[in-house]
Amino acid sequence: MKQEPKAENEEIIVGRNSVMEALKSGRSINKILVAQGDRQGSLREIIGKAKEQGLVVQTVDMARLDALGGPKHQGVAAMVAPVAYVELDDLLQQVACSGKTPFLVLLDELEDPHNVGAILRTADAAGVQGMLLPKRRTCPLSGTVAKTSAGAVEYVPVARIGNVAQTLKYLQQQGYWIIGADMEGDKLYHEADLTGPVVVVVGSEGKGLGRLTKECCDLLVRIPMAGNINSLNASVACSLLLYEIVRQRGLK
Amino acid sequence: MKQEPKAENEEIIVGRNSVMEALKSGRSINKILVAQGDRQGSLREIIGKAKEQGLVVQTVDMARLDALGGPKHQGVAAMVAPVAYVELDDLLQQVACSGKTPFLVLLDELEDPHNVGAILRTADAAGVQGMLLPKRRTCPLSGTVAKTSAGAVEYVPVARIGNVAQTLKYLQQQGYWIIGADMEGDKLYHEADLTGPVVVVVGSEGKGLGRLTKECCDLLVRIPMAGNINSLNASVACSLLLYEIVRQRGLK
Repeated sequence: MKQEPKAENEEIIVGRNSVMEALKSGRSINKILVAQGDRQGSLREIIGKAKEQGLVVQTVDMARLDALGGPKHQGVAAMVAPVAYVELDDLLQQVACSGKTPFLVLLDELEDPHNVGAILRTADAAGVQGMLLPKRRTCPLSGTVAKTSAGAVEYVPVARIGNVAQTLKYLQQQGYWIIGADMEGDKLYHEADLTGPVVVVVGSEGKGLGRLTKECCDLLVRIPMAGNINSLNASVACSLLLYEIVRQRGLK
Repeated sequence: MKQEPKAENEEIIVGRNSVMEALKSGRSINKILVAQGDRQGSLREIIGKAKEQGLVVQTVDMARLDALGGPKHQGVAAMVAPVAYVELDDLLQQVACSGKTPFLVLLDELEDPHNVGAILRTADAAGVQGMLLPKRRTCPLSGTVAKTSAGAVEYVPVARIGNVAQTLKYLQQQGYWIIGADMEGDKLYHEADLTGPVVVVVGSEGKGLGRLTKECCDLLVRIPMAGNINSLNASVACSLLLYEIVRQRGLK
């Protein structure tokens, strides 16, 4: 994941008591940073609690913590999202009660906060009901994401998820169609029927969708490429898919 | 226009002889920077020649020239595009000979090099035959544009144009339909017939299309917005239009 500098809107909590309180209160924590070295007492407890919640715990050197939180960090810091994450089940419930055809987006290993922010902005405009961000190898909601989203981060609910394949299977059981964007997709995106309840899955720019994720998709769609460059920017590719769904649903 | 730092691929030519040679050779110059103060002799000649070619001549202080080109600038510098611009008439000829339905993009007062680069990248993928960039108030081809385009700057011919309204009228005379992207457009973009020879005109994110530019459009199309944020990123909006044209032409 790109090391982004502390940006506007991103909150950092330092110190053992404060981080433990944040963990207990259920705040939307992106990850926990722990200093290298001794991990006794309350620090051990914090790490245990964080892992219990499925959070990423990253070991960093003292200098990094000093730079982020000043001298009072006591070897631990929590990076907090600028807005609260929602629980996946709460989101699905909300979608089910909306009376609209379900419309979600899942970003798989998208590491660039500018792309995540840009997709949030388009998602808001396209009427997407929620975004799913894996806890690992995907950029969390940060200040840069919030800024690039032009405010959309406040309106599109975002749920953090653990295992992508498991989540997609769970969504399939709930009646969702999993639509993956893939260069080698079976169908052109505008020739596929995208009018049902969908989760659009977009992978990283460099690598596209992972093999396991692809295997979970009900349909892989591709965007026609007429030129010399063989890929689109991830947020552009995602935007095309989201608006194709808007178009098809409008025709219905 | 955003002051972007000298980026990769961007060439700067300094010194009176070198800049004059660049002007004479017909290289693709984005603009000429001239130091404040005395403008005698060859400097005067350079300014005259630059204006003759319709280039932007910007007055800057010595410190800026020192920073850009070292001490040997002699009060003048030329910012050169990373790839050569083409002449509009050459581009139109090329399009006419291609046997394909003409497909151009004009960016009006788009100042962010990242957006210009991103649009070049999508333009290449969508099979756009050329891009028109006004000489004034629009980001020229720079190193940042080249980088964001992921290489597409090498493949999509770019012509610099003077007056936007005059150029659009000229294109209309050649049989082009001028399609403007506008929040208050008459038609939804996917309900308009975009299968003819087209120039897609996209304005700046903040202000959209200028009044004069709008008046030159044969059709203003809008992208439906379902959410709370009232605009899309300019490169996303442009990409949606370009790919809608791809879709419609594919159906024909």
